Amino acid sequence: MTTHTLDSPGAWTALATQIITDRSLDELDAWWRAANYLSIGQIYLLDNPLLREPLAPAHIKPRLLGHWGTTPGLNFLYAHLNRVIRDRDLNTIFITGPGHGGPGLVANTYLDGTYSEVYDDIDHTMDGVRKLFRQFSFPGGIPSHVAPETPGSIHEGGELGYSLSHAYGAVFDNPDLLVAAVVGDGEAETGPLATSWHSNKFIDPLRDGVVLPILHLNGYKIANPTVLARIPDHELDQLMRGYGHTPYLVSGGFDGEDPREVHRRFAAVLDEVMDQIARIKTDARSGRLEGRPAWPMIILRTPKGWTCPAFIDGKPAENSWRSHQVPLANARDTPAHVAVLEGWLRSYRPEELFDQAGAVVPLATALAPDGDRRMSANPVANGGLLRRPLRLPDFREYGVDVPAPGATTASATAVLGTWLRDVIVANPDNFRIFGPDETASNRLQAVFEVTDKQWDAEREDADMDNHLARSGRVVEMLSEHQCEGWLEGYLLTGRHGLINSYEAFIHIVDSMFNQHAKWLKSSRAIAWRQPISSLNYLLSSHVWRQDHNGASHQDPGFIDHVMNKKADIVRVYLPFDANTLLSTYDHCLRSVDYVNVVVAGKQPEANWLSMPDAVQHCTRGLGIFDWAGTERHGEEPDVILACAGDVPTIEVLAAASLLRTAVPALKVRVVNVVDLMRLQSEDQHPHGLSDAEYDAIFTTDRPVIFAYHGYPWLIHRLTYRRRGHANLHVRGFIEEGTTTTPFDMVMLNDLDRYRLVIDVLDRVPGLAAREAILRQEMQDARLSARAYTREHGEDIPVVAEWTWGAETP
Amino acid sequence: MTTHTLDSPGAWTALATQIITDRSLDELDAWWRAANYLSIGQIYLLDNPLLREPLAPAHIKPRLLGHWGTTPGLNFLYAHLNRVIRDRDLNTIFITGPGHGGPGLVANTYLDGTYSEVYDDIDHTMDGVRKLFRQFSFPGGIPSHVAPETPGSIHEGGELGYSLSHAYGAVFDNPDLLVAAVVGDGEAETGPLATSWHSNKFIDPLRDGVVLPILHLNGYKIANPTVLARIPDHELDQLMRGYGHTPYLVSGGFDGEDPREVHRRFAAVLDEVMDQIARIKTDARSGRLEGRPAWPMIILRTPKGWTCPAFIDGKPAENSWRSHQVPLANARDTPAHVAVLEGWLRSYRPEELFDQAGAVVPLATALAPDGDRRMSANPVANGGLLRRPLRLPDFREYGVDVPAPGATTASATAVLGTWLRDVIVANPDNFRIFGPDETASNRLQAVFEVTDKQWDAEREDADMDNHLARSGRVVEMLSEHQCEGWLEGYLLTGRHGLINSYEAFIHIVDSMFNQHAKWLKSSRAIAWRQPISSLNYLLSSHVWRQDHNGASHQDPGFIDHVMNKKADIVRVYLPFDANTLLSTYDHCLRSVDYVNVVVAGKQPEANWLSMPDAVQHCTRGLGIFDWAGTERHGEEPDVILACAGDVPTIEVLAAASLLRTAVPALKVRVVNVVDLMRLQSEDQHPHGLSDAEYDAIFTTDRPVIFAYHGYPWLIHRLTYRRRGHANLHVRGFIEEGTTTTPFDMVMLNDLDRYRLVIDVLDRVPGLAAREAILRQEMQDARLSARAYTREHGEDIPVVAEWTWGAETP
Repeated sequence: MTTHTLDSPGAWTALATQIITDRSLDELDAWWRAANYLSIGQIYLLDNPLLREPLAPAHIKPRLLGHWGTTPGLNFLYAHLNRVIRDRDLNTIFITGPGHGGPGLVANTYLDGTYSEVYDDIDHTMDGVRKLFRQFSFPGGIPSHVAPETPGSIHEGGELGYSLSHAYGAVFDNPDLLVAAVVGDGEAETGPLATSWHSNKFIDPLRDGVVLPILHLNGYKIANPTVLARIPDHELDQLMRGYGHTPYLVSGGFDGEDPREVHRRFAAVLDEVMDQIARIKTDARSGRLEGRPAWPMIILRTPKGWTCPAFIDGKPAENSWRSHQVPLANARDTPAHVAVLEGWLRSYRPEELFDQAGAVVPLATALAPDGDRRMSANPVANGGLLRRPLRLPDFREYGVDVPAPGATTASATAVLGTWLRDVIVANPDNFRIFGPDETASNRLQAVFEVTDKQWDAEREDADMDNHLARSGRVVEMLSEHQCEGWLEGYLLTGRHGLINSYEAFIHIVDSMFNQHAKWLKSSRAIAWRQPISSLNYLLSSHVWRQDHNGASHQDPGFIDHVMNKKADIVRVYLPFDANTLLSTYDHCLRSVDYVNVVVAGKQPEANWLSMPDAVQHCTRGLGIFDWAGTERHGEEPDVILACAGDVPTIEVLAAASLLRTAVPALKVRVVNVVDLMRLQSEDQHPHGLSDAEYDAIFTTDRPVIFAYHGYPWLIHRLTYRRRGHANLHVRGFIEEGTTTTPFDMVMLNDLDRYRLVIDVLDRVPGLAAREAILRQEMQDARLSARAYTREHGEDIPVVAEWTWGAETP
Repeated sequence: MTTHTLDSPGAWTALATQIITDRSLDELDAWWRAANYLSIGQIYLLDNPLLREPLAPAHIKPRLLGHWGTTPGLNFLYAHLNRVIRDRDLNTIFITGPGHGGPGLVANTYLDGTYSEVYDDIDHTMDGVRKLFRQFSFPGGIPSHVAPETPGSIHEGGELGYSLSHAYGAVFDNPDLLVAAVVGDGEAETGPLATSWHSNKFIDPLRDGVVLPILHLNGYKIANPTVLARIPDHELDQLMRGYGHTPYLVSGGFDGEDPREVHRRFAAVLDEVMDQIARIKTDARSGRLEGRPAWPMIILRTPKGWTCPAFIDGKPAENSWRSHQVPLANARDTPAHVAVLEGWLRSYRPEELFDQAGAVVPLATALAPDGDRRMSANPVANGGLLRRPLRLPDFREYGVDVPAPGATTASATAVLGTWLRDVIVANPDNFRIFGPDETASNRLQAVFEVTDKQWDAEREDADMDNHLARSGRVVEMLSEHQCEGWLEGYLLTGRHGLINSYEAFIHIVDSMFNQHAKWLKSSRAIAWRQPISSLNYLLSSHVWRQDHNGASHQDPGFIDHVMNKKADIVRVYLPFDANTLLSTYDHCLRSVDYVNVVVAGKQPEANWLSMPDAVQHCTRGLGIFDWAGTERHGEEPDVILACAGDVPTIEVLAAASLLRTAVPALKVRVVNVVDLMRLQSEDQHPHGLSDAEYDAIFTTDRPVIFAYHGYPWLIHRLTYRRRGHANLHVRGFIEEGTTTTPFDMVMLNDLDRYRLVIDVLDRVPGLAAREAILRQEMQDARLSARAYTREHGEDIPVVAEWTWGAETP
């Protein structure tokens, strides 16, 4: 693998005067025409790629797929950015909010040469062009969006809303990077995009790079105009200024305006914008920058489907929603449309753009920057190339002392915070923590001993503002979308991090997780994409401990959601105390190309495993707690009490403790599962236990009472193929919750220790009859706990005198 | 049940001059102090509610829960709105974006009398106040948020971001309604809220009501300042003007300012705002309104935790993030804090606010409007009171002709569109369709024969804009959050509707669905809440037919997501052709208090059932297709081919057809499931089949090959308790997808007809050996389909000659 580093460019220099030469205009125009031609060719042509013969129906694809509407605008911007990259030696990547403009981005990366470098069968010959066209949206070919297959992409753009969040994520800690982020005016209507304009308040002008948002108003979505294209210019200007930007509006291409005039105007504005950025960066470096800069942004208003036929069948096509996808949708079967298509293709004068052999002529590729300066070849957009493993302090040294199970207590996340604090110290420029205003609430506050929350809006003194600074490793905004998008952008460009959130509200980014998981799946199959750091979730303030908030804050279903994605990609961990959380998170921060979901408690709770035991347990992913059970060596247990999650573990251990005292002859096995994927069959998940291993732990015929952190049916889903599944009885969250005490919560959901003891009595043959008194005691205990709680507003003091077996570690 | 109607108020009248009298100020101040006192009492006090004796630790709750920070601002606004409601006879509800200000809203509804009317044990006596305080966030009591339990609430506010969407949903078709929507500055950072300001472009000033957004800047979230409180006033002003509003900023309460001065200033601004609204409404009614009005909105900047102790333990409390939750968190155990708390409570002069018996004095309740004019008693906020059942045309008359199964084809959603068109005609003022720019893409275009898409931004002529008008039954914005929030607001206020979306992107509102499902669950247990119309999803452009878009648009997991919520609430339907979709949707639009998820195809596909058969099949929820199978009367089948979803049904029927020809002696039963909940046990879901019914259809011992629309494990989850579960083999979407042909998609996921035939051969004992040639043919058919597709870019022509049994209907 080539080692890449980001060299410092000669960028951020304001040029004294810029005159757009005719030569530059020729180059812009040629690049743009070539990119447009290559885009349309991908959508329509199966053969005759350079129109060396008259267009015939057989040359047209049988299924016309793709989106033309946004593409000419993207091609226009790509060409212009190339010009300034060359002029100023900029270090730049391009983010394509309208990702369905895939053919445009493929065309640009073909023009600058990268495409043929990574896919060597798509060369600069007539045959290469033919293959380029044919593969697009073709079975066995490439997707229609700016997918992982597209060089230079870190943003697929299929689900709209995250272009700016990804862009800002990319520039954190990349002070010399410029991300040109094209925001479609459709995308701009989404919630996540609407708040992501505020990202400019979270950027350090000195230590971070620059995002240049380019709002592309092409006026229409699938079937409607867009909101931002239908408000007056002065409102749009105020909106962008209200977001803290200095907007520059360029409008052109309407009513048959010569594109060269639009090129000329846009080039001048882009130069001015680049000069302004250079001045801000220079001021930041020299310490002269006061307050938050009003970073420039560009609004480009062009016709949708610009340069396609103005009318098709008498109805407007260019500058209309009708050009959103494929303007001539039945071209192959409509002779008149074949002619329109041919005329449209020939309007770009392909004979001037390609030489006899089918290679693009030098004029049309003149704007391509050199080597890694090409936006498509910038290693930033293939972040694994730049990724350096984290320097991780030995997590064992941060463990809590556990002389005996339950003998000490700790807040698991608070302990994790002490380790993360030192992870930050050891990795000052490539590790960040993102969170929606919950990092302290989730008890990671130790990190603020060494860093701050990055914030470039107004600040007050330290009494009022808690660890806010222009620069800091923690980034917090009350938007899960922003936190997720920033982190994804940060990871995709080769760095490390995590997002911490309340468990219930991570559902807000369910769909973003989907898209990232899909990205990872596709990336793994692409030889030139290097592995990136895993996307790490730390979910705390979980379903069982929402004392302040009640039902709306109680939802453990994110785990269920992630389990639908490819087993190769997703990992779910439920560490149940401080030491298991440390061991788990160390593993997560070392991994690549996964999504790791870790759910952990933040309240002070008993510690169960010493550090050596925790490491061993987490390495195995699940195991038997000999010290908690009452089984006898060499004998099968009568019943298995299994648990996953901190609160279920407490209840299972309490139930085991109650049984040890009350029914000492009963052989109880206690099993804890940290790595949920271990439950699946080995053919379903790489972490899955073999059936023999599973049976050795859970038996094939003994009752298993499983107390689970989340919705109980997930455990059934994971184990339904196991031999002992018919004996499995799962307790979990059954959507009963409100603002109440912790113990009342477990009782409401039938997960409490007394209920678990009753489950054991009811399921071990004959036991309920023999232990009728105990069963009644357990029923009574539940009733009195409920009555006490309702009278006093606090939990009944419940068993905390743990009695363990002789084998206590 | 009382019948409620919305009478037309004397509102929307501009008052000539408003002078805030001293009497008004006294009333505002008294109401506010009382509401603040009652809020703090709920958070802290177990006893001694009116401080008739010195405060002792035993009077304080053992667990102090709740959020003070936002509460005084909410109380302030509630008091002021009461004043203008009384002055102008306004028809108003209050939406509390910062829903964790629950104690404030409870306090206000107690002051205006509603609370005691719906909860008669919480009366206006000392004992009533004691109960009011004790129940808050107390086991067996009420939740901490503005939950369904709170009179006047349609917005719990636990998950932030949807206050404005809900508010605008409430005013659609309520021309005389004013919704005062308080947006917290924390909430304002979320994506959904950031785009919901644009809702003002979707409101008809004549036929819809008015939303008055009140952005409450109290400056801090849990641990951080808020973004909008830390940008300059001029930026904030530009932002709101950019959103299309006329902002009014009131700042007060800082540095010890006398609250009476803030009352005076705010009252004057509120009068001016109400006058401005009245002028817009009057202009709209008289036809004088030109263009979109710049609706007023208010920015209220006050200290967080206003009126709490300025400092606690030497650190700022008022006007600081430290007052976000409970400022004196350990009051019971800290003697000094008991004194601080007592001083704080007494600062509101409770002795002036409550009489000897504990009743609030008239001065402090003088602002309460009369009867239903009280925001807490407005029937709009208990929408079931106002709900009129839809007038539904007989869906049977819209059915497609099906002389024999598969003999005709139709786009299921296009046919549904013709019925929905007439639903719109029959219900011109209480039924709406919401969608993220996909209503036409989802093929519901027939509705545009009778209505338009409502849009109050700029419009072009009809050639350019497709059915846009100031008024219309369809509302489209490219934000699933907005569509969902608007629909929820519309339903919660007593109307009907549906949201249509691409299947994959409905995950964007996973968390909103969660909250609505939780709301329904809680509402059902509240006697005074009346049932509301079900939340209906129509998901099309589904996973199997994303020809243009590929992997990012392929995700059937929303079904899995909804299944985690209470079985009482959720329903999932997979109608597989036009007639079954009509029958299903008729059922959905009649239902109340459910969430109905309907997934249906939009592409032209074979019709399978005549309307009478479709009705019978949908009524049963699942059934045997006698005509498709080859079983013989009175004999058990050899194998069951089951299906759910349009594409799996096609593949199963094709597999059955192949088997009928190739292995005529094989007794194949074909089962289709429309109502997914039928698969569950009857003790798990009200729709669940009894085990006897299930066994009669699926047998207990024959192999079942189940072709399912979504992720296959869901079927296992639903059936794992069934006796025949071990024989169940499910095919479904296994996350393999890209931009390719429809048949390639089913092949990629092993759901194709050939694979299903192989599954049958492999699972019927001995059959694979006997039919080795057929098995090879099926393997070959898959290979040639794949090869053909990759060569030609289109599907291989596959079996469409359906051969049915003698019992063809």
